[in-house]
Amino acid sequence: MNCMGIRYGDEMIIVDAGMGFPEETPYGVDISIPNFDFLEEYRDDITALVLTHGHEDHIGALAYLLKKFNIPVYASRFTHALAEKRLEEFEMLNDVLLHRVKAGDVSKIGAFEVEYIHASHSLVDCFSLAIKTPIGTVIHTGDYKIDDTPVIGPPYDLKTLKRYGDEGVLALLADSTNATVPGRTPSEQAVIPAFREIFEETPGRLFVATFSSSIHRLQIVFNLAHEYGRKVCVLGRSMIKNVEIATEQGLIKVGHGTLVDLSEARRYDDDEVCYLVTGSQGEMRAALWSMATSTYKGMEIGKGDTVVLSARIIPGNEKNISRLIGHLYKRGANIIEEKRRLVHVSGHASQEDIRIMVETARPKYLVPIHGEYRMLFRHKEFVKNHVPGYDDNNIVLIENGDLLEIDEFGARVVEKHELHRTFIDEESMGEIEYDIVRERKKLAYGGAISLVVTVDKATHRLVGDPQITLNGVAGLDLTNGFATHAREAVSAAVNEMKRDQIADKTVFKENLRIHLKRYVQKELGTKPVIVTTIVEV
Amino acid sequence: MNCMGIRYGDEMIIVDAGMGFPEETPYGVDISIPNFDFLEEYRDDITALVLTHGHEDHIGALAYLLKKFNIPVYASRFTHALAEKRLEEFEMLNDVLLHRVKAGDVSKIGAFEVEYIHASHSLVDCFSLAIKTPIGTVIHTGDYKIDDTPVIGPPYDLKTLKRYGDEGVLALLADSTNATVPGRTPSEQAVIPAFREIFEETPGRLFVATFSSSIHRLQIVFNLAHEYGRKVCVLGRSMIKNVEIATEQGLIKVGHGTLVDLSEARRYDDDEVCYLVTGSQGEMRAALWSMATSTYKGMEIGKGDTVVLSARIIPGNEKNISRLIGHLYKRGANIIEEKRRLVHVSGHASQEDIRIMVETARPKYLVPIHGEYRMLFRHKEFVKNHVPGYDDNNIVLIENGDLLEIDEFGARVVEKHELHRTFIDEESMGEIEYDIVRERKKLAYGGAISLVVTVDKATHRLVGDPQITLNGVAGLDLTNGFATHAREAVSAAVNEMKRDQIADKTVFKENLRIHLKRYVQKELGTKPVIVTTIVEV
Repeated sequence: MNCMGIRYGDEMIIVDAGMGFPEETPYGVDISIPNFDFLEEYRDDITALVLTHGHEDHIGALAYLLKKFNIPVYASRFTHALAEKRLEEFEMLNDVLLHRVKAGDVSKIGAFEVEYIHASHSLVDCFSLAIKTPIGTVIHTGDYKIDDTPVIGPPYDLKTLKRYGDEGVLALLADSTNATVPGRTPSEQAVIPAFREIFEETPGRLFVATFSSSIHRLQIVFNLAHEYGRKVCVLGRSMIKNVEIATEQGLIKVGHGTLVDLSEARRYDDDEVCYLVTGSQGEMRAALWSMATSTYKGMEIGKGDTVVLSARIIPGNEKNISRLIGHLYKRGANIIEEKRRLVHVSGHASQEDIRIMVETARPKYLVPIHGEYRMLFRHKEFVKNHVPGYDDNNIVLIENGDLLEIDEFGARVVEKHELHRTFIDEESMGEIEYDIVRERKKLAYGGAISLVVTVDKATHRLVGDPQITLNGVAGLDLTNGFATHAREAVSAAVNEMKRDQIADKTVFKENLRIHLKRYVQKELGTKPVIVTTIVEV
Repeated sequence: MNCMGIRYGDEMIIVDAGMGFPEETPYGVDISIPNFDFLEEYRDDITALVLTHGHEDHIGALAYLLKKFNIPVYASRFTHALAEKRLEEFEMLNDVLLHRVKAGDVSKIGAFEVEYIHASHSLVDCFSLAIKTPIGTVIHTGDYKIDDTPVIGPPYDLKTLKRYGDEGVLALLADSTNATVPGRTPSEQAVIPAFREIFEETPGRLFVATFSSSIHRLQIVFNLAHEYGRKVCVLGRSMIKNVEIATEQGLIKVGHGTLVDLSEARRYDDDEVCYLVTGSQGEMRAALWSMATSTYKGMEIGKGDTVVLSARIIPGNEKNISRLIGHLYKRGANIIEEKRRLVHVSGHASQEDIRIMVETARPKYLVPIHGEYRMLFRHKEFVKNHVPGYDDNNIVLIENGDLLEIDEFGARVVEKHELHRTFIDEESMGEIEYDIVRERKKLAYGGAISLVVTVDKATHRLVGDPQITLNGVAGLDLTNGFATHAREAVSAAVNEMKRDQIADKTVFKENLRIHLKRYVQKELGTKPVIVTTIVEV
């Protein structure tokens, strides 16, 4: 959910507009995005949105941001294509000004000059940003690794970074995702030997599950498939989309006739096809889960098949992945996991990469970004202990919502805001208010009781029996007639009330609710939500 | 949630009665236990419950099982004490026959003879079971590691196991928790060097967070605290309970005057106290979380404090632990994690321990138990590849609900049952039916609309306006008057219905529900639960 504003005087540019996957999915929430209210006070100052790269946590909130602030967007060709797909879904493509830029370009945006520095990462066509301001240059690394031998494109452009380092960098805002990991992050090429062995030794069908955005990885699979005489069949919506864009742009190179669709793939022998599939995180809606538990378009994984899980386990997905593997084993498949063979490398800078970054940019201030506070802290701790010249005075830890001010006197957090997330229901593309989620949590926890009481308008006396409907209420024993007794208890309570207590509907309603609540808690020991309706006749 | 029946002829003993922590906590569920309905058909055959050890996933469902089947219980002294505490909470202590047994004892239970074999584990006073039946001996390992130098008690009793191996073992039911981990599991003593360094180098307050059941670990902390002149203050309900039982039984030895309560601890200097606390999994209700985020009985962690997280991360807890660490860093504490220093070892057998187990017991059939299917599978795979004489014919993979039959002709799964979990609300100690959880899930996902319609009994015509109450319903814009329009839509729908459609209350109710549902879906794009009530006047 990355999103940052960089402001000088009365001008501000935004870097990235990402989404996240919140824990509130049981409450009808699909994704979360930043609550952009924090930008409202700068509405007139905001001049542009610059995207570092195309991962969802950097561009997933694009449409929602642009709906509120219709500003021009600067992005690389590949990021641009992904952004276009997103905006198409929202029917916003014609209303947005998209600038396509490439590494080495410089955009003059008001008081800012932004140079796009080629960055290596698990994705392609990524940028670090050099943002020149009148008081100095701010480097924003975006997500990066220092890959000297990526599969696609040139290595990380340390030369340009060094040029800025030589000229003087005011602040380096740097990726902390892997700041707890010692050593260097291996090159994207590091997985080739293990994959080569797998292609060499696999007798039957081969399934490779990876992130659809791991473009280098996809290229490796295409290359080896070609070399070992396998066709490649791409399955899963996001995988198909990304392969399409990356091949169109010439980023992924696929041998003529290598790519086949599912019906073609079926006509080949088992050892003549490799399937590139989504679902490495055990997602139940992805292709791999379907193939492992039932069928996916008529396909199922079984004896003789080999499945490579070429991805890290994102925290929170352990259980689902373990279940997925259990299902695959039950079907008799052979599983190759990251833990047992080098079939995955990270896209983020480890500690020694961080050292290279800091030593090359030599910023006046280092500001760790991207990651939980634990990682930002460890980023600081590592640099403090291993790069001379950095200490508590020039490494600044910031949190979400912090306003960091940098001037000739120093860099310091001058304001702290509590930032909220905005929950999105993807089906309706609408926002779900935080209060709504809170109400849903109460309903989930204890269920609901609907109580309807009819009173005579003139006499303020009960007419007929109260009606009670239960939903998700626990502790009921059908034989003990809870509903009947509860009705009687409510009737008795109403009959004891004074006329004026009943005449005031608000008071009456609240009284009823409290009576029934107490009764339920005594009888069932639970706390359902109680909805009372009064009918006056 | 371990629970297994072992049956010969018309006699059955139960091994363990464990609980689990389900993912359904948002729905008012605290714990899950096995649905003991699967035992009903053997009701008259069940003669005893034997407990291997006192971990919650082996004894947590004890009271619920004994409520349904009042059978005698066999357990070690320590397990017995934990079981007593549980039964006290349920006021069942006087109704249950508890047999206290020790390693080496043999209980004759009908057709079975059960010998208790001393097992090493992270807990103390644990058993593997040798269950002699008329057709051969079944060894049930319980949870175990092969620890040659535990901190408390003797090593795993391989000698007795070997005796059974020599006599002939029909089946070995063996722990698979760490079957994916290569090598040997280090001894409980392996953490001493790191802890010694920590006691040596820590200048301020020292907090050690670990599982309250890691009794060896607690002893190590008590020993080093004594050696380095620190008092020990135990915080957190389960930690206090376990230390109390283990010291009473002489399992943990505490130097005179070492144990202090919180008010005493406060009178000592920072470097004179060590706090043993719960909350290593980032649990928000535990002592450590409170100390890291606000205060715990007036105590808070801050600058100069050292916190040792002496526990593994249980899958699912990654995010909370990471947050906890973030909070601790923010407060200026020094954190020592398992990943960076050897402050934790597992209590379960790794692959080379498994090899020792199988080679010592030399069972006719090996049946991996305890663990997800992925682990059972890897258990089989390891033994198949590394212990001669074992293959697909004598390693049997079973799943929850399987009925495994062993006779002179072989070992095979003869029936498969779908086992359900029973959800428990700990506050009311009552069961929550699966259907109730399903209703709560619907409420959580879309919220609820209560619709109350009043009709004239004689004319079957609408009286007044329908009433609509919303709870957790998203997509509302207060300015667009959704409720008013929905009321009008319902009124219009009722006015268009035929008299007989209204006269039949069931049909009328369902019609109303469907009308409103369609309207809501069209207007808001959501699917709340709709509760309709009809008032006839």
